[in-house]
Amino acid sequence: MKLLIINPNTSDEMTSNIDSIAKKYARKETEIVTVHSRKGPVSIESQFEEAIIAEPLFERIIEGNQNDYDAIIIACYGDPHLYAAREISDIPVLGVAECSMHIASLLGYKFSIVTIIESTRPMLEELIKKNGLESRCASIKTTAFSPTDFEKQSDDVLKVLTEAAKDAVENDGAEVICLGCAGMAGIDKPMSEKLGVPVLDGVACAVKMAETLVDYGVTHSKVKAFSRPRKKEFKGFNNLFNNI
Amino acid sequence: MKLLIINPNTSDEMTSNIDSIAKKYARKETEIVTVHSRKGPVSIESQFEEAIIAEPLFERIIEGNQNDYDAIIIACYGDPHLYAAREISDIPVLGVAECSMHIASLLGYKFSIVTIIESTRPMLEELIKKNGLESRCASIKTTAFSPTDFEKQSDDVLKVLTEAAKDAVENDGAEVICLGCAGMAGIDKPMSEKLGVPVLDGVACAVKMAETLVDYGVTHSKVKAFSRPRKKEFKGFNNLFNNI
Amino acid sequence: MKLLIINPNTSDEMTSNIDSIAKKYARKETEIVTVHSRKGPVSIESQFEEAIIAEPLFERIIEGNQNDYDAIIIACYGDPHLYAAREISDIPVLGVAECSMHIASLLGYKFSIVTIIESTRPMLEELIKKNGLESRCASIKTTAFSPTDFEKQSDDVLKVLTEAAKDAVENDGAEVICLGCAGMAGIDKPMSEKLGVPVLDGVACAVKMAETLVDYGVTHSKVKAFSRPRKKEFKGFNNLFNNI
Amino acid sequence: MKLLIINPNTSDEMTSNIDSIAKKYARKETEIVTVHSRKGPVSIESQFEEAIIAEPLFERIIEGNQNDYDAIIIACYGDPHLYAAREISDIPVLGVAECSMHIASLLGYKFSIVTIIESTRPMLEELIKKNGLESRCASIKTTAFSPTDFEKQSDDVLKVLTEAAKDAVENDGAEVICLGCAGMAGIDKPMSEKLGVPVLDGVACAVKMAETLVDYGVTHSKVKAFSRPRKKEFKGFNNLFNNI
Amino acid sequence: MKLLIINPNTSDEMTSNIDSIAKKYARKETEIVTVHSRKGPVSIESQFEEAIIAEPLFERIIEGNQNDYDAIIIACYGDPHLYAAREISDIPVLGVAECSMHIASLLGYKFSIVTIIESTRPMLEELIKKNGLESRCASIKTTAFSPTDFEKQSDDVLKVLTEAAKDAVENDGAEVICLGCAGMAGIDKPMSEKLGVPVLDGVACAVKMAETLVDYGVTHSKVKAFSRPRKKEFKGFNNLFNNI
Amino acid sequence: MKLLIINPNTSDEMTSNIDSIAKKYARKETEIVTVHSRKGPVSIESQFEEAIIAEPLFERIIEGNQNDYDAIIIACYGDPHLYAAREISDIPVLGVAECSMHIASLLGYKFSIVTIIESTRPMLEELIKKNGLESRCASIKTTAFSPTDFEKQSDDVLKVLTEAAKDAVENDGAEVICLGCAGMAGIDKPMSEKLGVPVLDGVACAVKMAETLVDYGVTHSKVKAFSRPRKKEFKGFNNLFNNI
Repeated sequence: MKLLIINPNTSDEMTSNIDSIAKKYARKETEIVTVHSRKGPVSIESQFEEAIIAEPLFERIIEGNQNDYDAIIIACYGDPHLYAAREISDIPVLGVAECSMHIASLLGYKFSIVTIIESTRPMLEELIKKNGLESRCASIKTTAFSPTDFEKQSDDVLKVLTEAAKDAVENDGAEVICLGCAGMAGIDKPMSEKLGVPVLDGVACAVKMAETLVDYGVTHSKVKAFSRPRKKEFKGFNNLFNNI
Repeated sequence: MKLLIINPNTSDEMTSNIDSIAKKYARKETEIVTVHSRKGPVSIESQFEEAIIAEPLFERIIEGNQNDYDAIIIACYGDPHLYAAREISDIPVLGVAECSMHIASLLGYKFSIVTIIESTRPMLEELIKKNGLESRCASIKTTAFSPTDFEKQSDDVLKVLTEAAKDAVENDGAEVICLGCAGMAGIDKPMSEKLGVPVLDGVACAVKMAETLVDYGVTHSKVKAFSRPRKKEFKGFNNLFNNI
Repeated sequence: MKLLIINPNTSDEMTSNIDSIAKKYARKETEIVTVHSRKGPVSIESQFEEAIIAEPLFERIIEGNQNDYDAIIIACYGDPHLYAAREISDIPVLGVAECSMHIASLLGYKFSIVTIIESTRPMLEELIKKNGLESRCASIKTTAFSPTDFEKQSDDVLKVLTEAAKDAVENDGAEVICLGCAGMAGIDKPMSEKLGVPVLDGVACAVKMAETLVDYGVTHSKVKAFSRPRKKEFKGFNNLFNNI
Repeated sequence: MKLLIINPNTSDEMTSNIDSIAKKYARKETEIVTVHSRKGPVSIESQFEEAIIAEPLFERIIEGNQNDYDAIIIACYGDPHLYAAREISDIPVLGVAECSMHIASLLGYKFSIVTIIESTRPMLEELIKKNGLESRCASIKTTAFSPTDFEKQSDDVLKVLTEAAKDAVENDGAEVICLGCAGMAGIDKPMSEKLGVPVLDGVACAVKMAETLVDYGVTHSKVKAFSRPRKKEFKGFNNLFNNI
Repeated sequence: MKLLIINPNTSDEMTSNIDSIAKKYARKETEIVTVHSRKGPVSIESQFEEAIIAEPLFERIIEGNQNDYDAIIIACYGDPHLYAAREISDIPVLGVAECSMHIASLLGYKFSIVTIIESTRPMLEELIKKNGLESRCASIKTTAFSPTDFEKQSDDVLKVLTEAAKDAVENDGAEVICLGCAGMAGIDKPMSEKLGVPVLDGVACAVKMAETLVDYGVTHSKVKAFSRPRKKEFKGFNNLFNNI
Repeated sequence: MKLLIINPNTSDEMTSNIDSIAKKYARKETEIVTVHSRKGPVSIESQFEEAIIAEPLFERIIEGNQNDYDAIIIACYGDPHLYAAREISDIPVLGVAECSMHIASLLGYKFSIVTIIESTRPMLEELIKKNGLESRCASIKTTAFSPTDFEKQSDDVLKVLTEAAKDAVENDGAEVICLGCAGMAGIDKPMSEKLGVPVLDGVACAVKMAETLVDYGVTHSKVKAFSRPRKKEFKGFNNLFNNI
């Protein structure tokens, strides 16, 4: 099985971190290829950035479909353009946020998300609502971090995120913690040890779910929400899009 | 007062139709300028198309901010990238769908949306949820039309849409009809006459709401959801985005 | 265009304040006439008071319909008897609360309402639910004020309300503030300046929405919720009601 | 125990029907006194009528408090002014709709309401929402009846209502039927026999709940939603209201 | 009228306390018989314990049906196996939690539940949701108590529960308090006196509701959710179950 | 990895069917052991049956914990006693319904459940609500089948279930079908082929999710909802329960 993981920003470090954690949890017969978008910002922490990265992300989605992959993962905890990507893909496309939230729902009555800067809260609230999991989410805990702060793992990152998670467990009713940025690779287990509750890395969750879907031989439904758009001309865009 | 209306697809006909209806309902001292995106598809009827038109739309948003406009309207009934656009705008940015749904909520207990092809239903359901108006929406009525079918007004369009709306009024409890495509310009009044209930054109609603906001001297809040993203490099994109 | 604004209590001062702010934001070609009910209490701050003012309010609604007005505004932040009033009116009837909450929804992801005494909280909660905007409302902040405290503008009023609003912005996630009493006229702009977020006066919002509806040539739907009651005798009431 | 039942319209026949069913189900040591409002319409089937009957209803509420009653029932299936009435009452005030819906929730997973004309649907939807029982209500079935049609029991009434109820049971998932008009007295048992499911009369339910509250020695809470309004002058109203 | 109250644990003291409060509030012509399960734990404070007590509870339910009772009450504030019990019962079966929450909804806009250990919170949240009363519940206040702590009434119990309730009233908006354990017998009135709001004992509420249902001649609907299971063999279980 | 699958009824045929499908989709290094309860009915199709099978199910859960398994699956589409089972288990316990509904949420915007007799509808509605996935579920389609009807695969079963599913896809908006009985083993792929949408078998889904959790090294949280009950005596029950 061959999985394509797309980091939709342009950071080499983050891509490499995502690649490590994916390989750590993938089964040995699963081949992981991790790439980032060819253009765009080094991190995604606003709705504007989330929106503008669509085109280079879709290029990667189309390449994934043309190159013998079994499934694709979009590795950014906003699940940017996930439903759109499914429209132009015949193989499963998974988001790291949706995968971690659904798995969290199997491990506890309520989960909390520990994430980056406060201004991303509305984006996460919308995402939880879109997935229909409002009643399972205890809280969103924001911190002062930017995604690029996770490129080099520091003790400070672990300390601050663990404190935020502890607050969620003690005061908001959280029983499981979802790490709310694809760049937080590698802190799931140390944090879980400190907290005594499961801590989920979105990339790890998505890799396992991709293996599940491929093993089971299912892909997303193509009859309504994810049905393929009619062919049309995309004036001024990469020629690729004219032939989907 | 000077309003910029952006049709985020590349159809000249639809842009011209949007311009007419905007001018029809704008106050005489309101100056209307209607443009379309410089690149992209001729219509937007999938999540993929909605996503990919972000970049050229944002160019227009930035131009609107740099050129003395008082408010901007995104004229597509999916309100594409509306929240993202607000992040990079200091002047009000309004969506035609949100404006028509909020006005509909002042005119009836329940409204229905009459729109294009069935596969757009999930997009509209998400949009209604995002606006928090699920309890005010009686139903979404889809038809076999594409947005380009409205470029030339035909009797058939009016007939089919009126029938769908009648079904909503008689069977779903609708008291007000929202026209669910920015290209349906000019049929609000004829349809209302046939149905005996208010029929709202999104562009007309957005023009009036833009006048309201400008008159009242308010713009969207810049403290949380719509706060300006930190400056960063957008590798490979229009240089414009590096300086927002 | 001629708008009738009805203050449904009997306070001359409050009526005069309402009149000022309405005139301040109305377009110059909009004629504003502000009246209060002929009988009733000087303020409305309980469900009992809200209920009992129905009859004199309806007299004013009927007069508005008989005297060449284009739209009517009920200027009390509980939107008392709004739906009932629409049943007996052919011209648009708007509530100040609904108008400010719908406009707030165009300016931020979440709004808070800053209002009078704590015992009105359930009334406001019901009103928000009725408008279907629970997911857009961050919080209701009550204070120790009665509506009559706003008759004379004092520094204290501005200070206390601004503090309550600041709390909403900093701790509840509010991005827009709705002033929750029609008597709070004139503090929207000073408060907005202090807070750095939009502050909405309900009367101002309703005036602009009335202009919008009249401009657009729409009134509330008469087919279901607001359909005209069958004629019947109102034994012991003003003869006016026997002929609606 | 002495219960005051207030029919808030002015129909003698309906009052007498309400009195009969109340006495039929009251315990023999419970004294029932049924009155109607001194002024107002003969039936209540619109929001306008529901609103305008406040004053004469409140006179009855105050009389109930001054004359040695143990509890009061408002006998109209819109529960008009119920919360307002509780504000000015020290003894329990119950609505027939709330009582029947709460009892229905103890008898089935889902109940339906069978009621009068279609235009009352939004009023009932609001009422169900206000009571928080949306998830327990399967459907509202309207008919062509007016409340006055029930003044004289006819076979047609039973037949039509039973058919509507049957539709609710067979197609909407209803397991219990609530009779949605206080005037439908006497058909609960015959209808239940025909349908094979419990059919609840609102007046009967409210009488039993009033006995329950009085037996248990509890009345509604006076600390927030139902706290007594501050004394103030009600210019032009019955002097009674100046002293509550 | 003869009511069977089943304490589904095996504590004699708790059974005796339940019996006292039931007899205190029952009408004098109501005969109360209180029993406990023949096997099981002395208290129920986890989902595991709630689940495992099904069999001995159902034995009591069947006995109640075979022995001339008019209604049955399950006296544990989780309403364990209530819907299942209704399936195998022809006479009404009531839960103490549902009865207290529905009565609380008639006495205040919002109620809070004061209960035992924190780990029962999810069970109560589910129960409130199942009853559809989320919007009426202000909060759940847990304490360090186990049900067995209530077997002997101590001043400490009253003090701690009253403090938790006071917190609910002052900070969460509660207007009515529900005592969240069937073993809290006898503290409703002293606590209410201290707090100034109604305090409801679940057993008392269920006794009054049972009287109501029997008086009114209704039992739960047998058409859907509570329809009788098809006869089948229960290999290895009490022979009783093979003949239901 | 070693998985214990518990069929909580006593049917040998159904157990064998469950075993086959589990082995079909398990990875080759996953060892599957499928057992059924030692006592109880041959099928579970009512709340009564779901409740009464708790004790023998818990015996199997404890055995699974004492015998070197890595995870346990409860193979009945009501997820009976799932949360209770987690309380007494240190290894993951998964339900087939929750697993299929969460996976369905990754494959479509809306899923429908095709299941057995109509009287189980309320049980499924509650289950969906408990999992928080109401907004993702398009409909529940019941049929006339009992679980025992699936013991021998017949063409009729496939035909009837496919028709029900087709109705869900064409009329209710379903994009994915969940098979709502653990006994429907083996029809997922043939049905999917006929329908053109993904069809999910609950046992298959749970096996894949169990592999995921074990691979990732996570188990359910033990801090709140699933915390271990305090040790106590279970008078009259299997001695096993006194030592959990």
